[in-house]
Amino acid sequence: MSNNTNNTITTKCLACKDASGLMMRHTFQRRAIGPADVHISISYSGICHSDIHTGKGEWGPMVYPLCVGHEILGTVVEVGSTVTKFAVGDRAGVGCFTDSCRTCEECVAGDENYCSGPGGNHLTYGSKQTEELHPGGGVTQGGYSSDIVVDENYVIKVPEKMHVAATAPLLCAGVTCYSPFRHFGVKAGMTLGVAGLGGLGHMAVKIGKAMGCTVVVMTRSEHKKESAFALGASKVIVTTDDDQMAEAAKSLDMIYDSIAFKHDVKQYLGLLKTSGTMIMVGGVPDVLGVSSFDLLPRRLSIVGSMIGGIRETQEMIDFCAEHDIVSDIELVPATPEAVDVAWERTINADVKYRFVIDTKATL
Amino acid sequence: MSNNTNNTITTKCLACKDASGLMMRHTFQRRAIGPADVHISISYSGICHSDIHTGKGEWGPMVYPLCVGHEILGTVVEVGSTVTKFAVGDRAGVGCFTDSCRTCEECVAGDENYCSGPGGNHLTYGSKQTEELHPGGGVTQGGYSSDIVVDENYVIKVPEKMHVAATAPLLCAGVTCYSPFRHFGVKAGMTLGVAGLGGLGHMAVKIGKAMGCTVVVMTRSEHKKESAFALGASKVIVTTDDDQMAEAAKSLDMIYDSIAFKHDVKQYLGLLKTSGTMIMVGGVPDVLGVSSFDLLPRRLSIVGSMIGGIRETQEMIDFCAEHDIVSDIELVPATPEAVDVAWERTINADVKYRFVIDTKATL
Repeated sequence: MSNNTNNTITTKCLACKDASGLMMRHTFQRRAIGPADVHISISYSGICHSDIHTGKGEWGPMVYPLCVGHEILGTVVEVGSTVTKFAVGDRAGVGCFTDSCRTCEECVAGDENYCSGPGGNHLTYGSKQTEELHPGGGVTQGGYSSDIVVDENYVIKVPEKMHVAATAPLLCAGVTCYSPFRHFGVKAGMTLGVAGLGGLGHMAVKIGKAMGCTVVVMTRSEHKKESAFALGASKVIVTTDDDQMAEAAKSLDMIYDSIAFKHDVKQYLGLLKTSGTMIMVGGVPDVLGVSSFDLLPRRLSIVGSMIGGIRETQEMIDFCAEHDIVSDIELVPATPEAVDVAWERTINADVKYRFVIDTKATL
Repeated sequence: MSNNTNNTITTKCLACKDASGLMMRHTFQRRAIGPADVHISISYSGICHSDIHTGKGEWGPMVYPLCVGHEILGTVVEVGSTVTKFAVGDRAGVGCFTDSCRTCEECVAGDENYCSGPGGNHLTYGSKQTEELHPGGGVTQGGYSSDIVVDENYVIKVPEKMHVAATAPLLCAGVTCYSPFRHFGVKAGMTLGVAGLGGLGHMAVKIGKAMGCTVVVMTRSEHKKESAFALGASKVIVTTDDDQMAEAAKSLDMIYDSIAFKHDVKQYLGLLKTSGTMIMVGGVPDVLGVSSFDLLPRRLSIVGSMIGGIRETQEMIDFCAEHDIVSDIELVPATPEAVDVAWERTINADVKYRFVIDTKATL
């Protein structure tokens, strides 16, 4: 950290140089710390597939250089005059958004992830906000960086024992499981199916098991069986095996569907018990291929969920701390070359199960 | 009622003569009353669109003559030796099924409407069961008839004050609203949208209002406004009016979608608040035209529901008795000619809102 004359914070980062998504070293200014702000020196930053979609402009045009990353773990190095929740030296996390309107129905309910105020919440990166909050263009810049300044109400307290690289992915992947599990009523004794064993799916297995569920992993690949059992699954269904699918019919209370590409949702509905719920968290633009006739006769639900609110994220971190849950990760140095490779491998689903950038040590 | 030598019960009815669905007068035998059975002399029988689909063989081939009808209201005229819930003279109702396996998870939970036992529950008409239970071919015969014999566990107690024709439709249309409202958490203070103002929709307005909701009716037809307000709606949205749709965006906690033909479900999702639920009860074979991208960003749910269990049906009748709710009906005599016309008008949605056959007086 070094402060310039305006007290803005000079921040080193890895940034996408253009829509190729390739990384470059870059330096920019964070705002000077305000009364309610916490200045965090970033230790680790997870790589989420959303970073890649956004960085490459696949979800809309971006201004470059753009620093992404929204699974941020670090240490508080300075606090504003009115900050009460954090002190210097505290471990802290930041997830997918760093502010919101605070007045809409959703924010008041603690669902800032669904903020319906003007422009919605302030996404951690690539979001057009004010120059005052985000100097140098008014675009939010993410966690592949040395420092971040965030209002304390949007910062998560992380227990000291969790100050490890494998905690970073919880800030997005972890809460993307935890939030719908709580909201849609995952409970001990249930049989929980997990479709897709990637960054989200592997967290769903761990969190679902810790919530007392019997976890059943569904995968197209026979070779993922062993990994699924290692994560805590009690059973694996190979979805391309008709016999296994038939045998597993009507056996699951809920399914956590983290598959992020077009897939046969109807096939999974057959695995749900009567009154079962299919939780979708993978944004897939294709229509579901399901009719009301597929839902009515067994009172099935198809629901969507997106990350989680601040209170839920804190709950999730505390829950994971209590149950010794972290992500399975591969740590990579904060060099353009290493992150370029990690992105390529993420695109190819060649990671168990999340890359984390060793920001502090190598940026 | 007249009993023949085997103590089977000679039953007069109106039956579909063939897949034309046209009615004929017919006589068949109900089983002799067993220890757990209740013999009901039928007073009124509602006309449900399902009668028409089934009667015309649109949901699978049928054996004719076939007597349909599953909104049955009558008076107990005889009870079996072990019957405890009913006495001669009691008012009684029968809905969409007259028995189930009683041992599956769903039946044990009181969700006999979702019975997963072999062959599922015994639908009130057109269902292949045993000759012993349904003499004369082993096919269940419905309520457009003079008499019915049903196990007491599948019969609903109807308060004396509700022994009116307009109560009959509650046995199907009423519980098709009540059950999902309870299961999916409709509560006082909510704003409930009702899409489709027919037999189901008009009950949803009444029951939703009695549950303490502000009810908003969505309709394509400006001319239905007055009727909607008369039923208890607080607001009407004409769905073909873009301004009204825009103004109503994100205003509904839940939508009860009773539309039974292909329609733009996505358009309705926009009217739901964050975390809102779309309850579908109209069986439509076409895919919903919705992607996970339509659900995730606002945590929306699309759910299906089909009639209700016996306990819920009893609860619904008691609730409607307490709140003075019955169906809006048009009473028709039990003649082939009158029912043929009523079916034609039902197909054309030319009824406010349910036909009921005056079985007792005219059969």
